Amino acid sequence: MRDTKHQQLLSKLLEMVSVHKKDLFSQIIKNRSRHLTVVMEDIFQSQNASAVLRSADCFGIQDVHIIENRNEYTLNPQVSLGSSKWLSLYKYNSEKNNTQVAYENLRKKGYQIVATTPHLNDVSLNELDISKKTALVFGTEMQGLSTYAIENADIHMKIPMYGFTESFNISVSAALCMHFLSEKMRNSNENDWQLSDSEQNEILLSWAKSVVKSSNEIERKILGI
Amino acid sequence: MRDTKHQQLLSKLLEMVSVHKKDLFSQIIKNRSRHLTVVMEDIFQSQNASAVLRSADCFGIQDVHIIENRNEYTLNPQVSLGSSKWLSLYKYNSEKNNTQVAYENLRKKGYQIVATTPHLNDVSLNELDISKKTALVFGTEMQGLSTYAIENADIHMKIPMYGFTESFNISVSAALCMHFLSEKMRNSNENDWQLSDSEQNEILLSWAKSVVKSSNEIERKILGI
Repeated sequence: MRDTKHQQLLSKLLEMVSVHKKDLFSQIIKNRSRHLTVVMEDIFQSQNASAVLRSADCFGIQDVHIIENRNEYTLNPQVSLGSSKWLSLYKYNSEKNNTQVAYENLRKKGYQIVATTPHLNDVSLNELDISKKTALVFGTEMQGLSTYAIENADIHMKIPMYGFTESFNISVSAALCMHFLSEKMRNSNENDWQLSDSEQNEILLSWAKSVVKSSNEIERKILGI
Repeated sequence: MRDTKHQQLLSKLLEMVSVHKKDLFSQIIKNRSRHLTVVMEDIFQSQNASAVLRSADCFGIQDVHIIENRNEYTLNPQVSLGSSKWLSLYKYNSEKNNTQVAYENLRKKGYQIVATTPHLNDVSLNELDISKKTALVFGTEMQGLSTYAIENADIHMKIPMYGFTESFNISVSAALCMHFLSEKMRNSNENDWQLSDSEQNEILLSWAKSVVKSSNEIERKILGI
């Protein structure tokens, strides 16, 4: 949390949130994490992108990075069920190689970058070491990840498969990775996977703002902006 | 395998299959299992039903049971990617309560019946004991499972969730359960999860038939039918 005024704003807004919602907020925030994050590169079908957001929320993954080199991302409200308002979304769409910008940003934040592809494999999902902060990168339905995304990743990972079908739908493969790795993270004593108090308060503030109708007005009053 | 003639037929057909495909067959059949099976009750969207078939193939689950009390099941070829021809599908659509018929059939085959629902929970996915043969039942996108399906199941299971969203898309939730439990099954020494030689040959025969164009003619000649 940046300062006392923001803390005041959070307290004020939380007073206006129902008890049920406030309980939900404090239960969910404890399970939120930035230890794992998800990156979507040029996901074409909005239905799939929205399903990935829904899964991220379900597994407590707070940050989702959206790279748009070719496909403009639009939400499908029926599929995401409003989950995007509970997540922190980072969009990369203003440069020529937005994947490069996203990778540099993630590396600065200390993430190892894991490209998910059925064609190359340094490790399988079951073996991936997540003692470091880990960003999971998923590519388009048709072409998979870009050459840049593959060549510049730290690790290539695949989900073990035993049948004739050689790939999963993107929303399924993202959900499988998030489910397996977030369970592993929660059950491990090694990782410091929870958010700091300051991060928790920042996110609680954004949640409170999204449910209190008059939040803009209150924000202007308290912050004097 | 029923008799020597069927064995002859299989050998004859396998001679006509490419070496690559034959290798694929023998590798995949070893990973096939009936220890776990999947049951879909009235899945409305063919896209979802087809995605479930694709996942079943990926995880080596050979049998899929399709109950049609209200929704007629049709394949979406774009989504299933042909996976249905590698699976054994059992349809229940001729009685008033097809769910009852399916449950009776599964019990006769020794399955414990596990209804997946986010609202009731005897156990969570991570705790489910699969030392017995296990049938996982999934319901419609909108209403979930029927009252009959819920009340007559042996166990109610849910997938642990940590966010605001309270349910997964059906194709995602089926994939998560199949992935988690099939990995557990493969890594366990307790279960006799592989198919018997006879079951393997029956299935190999159906696979060979589906790829050899003149299989009907050869079958008539060898079996004399």
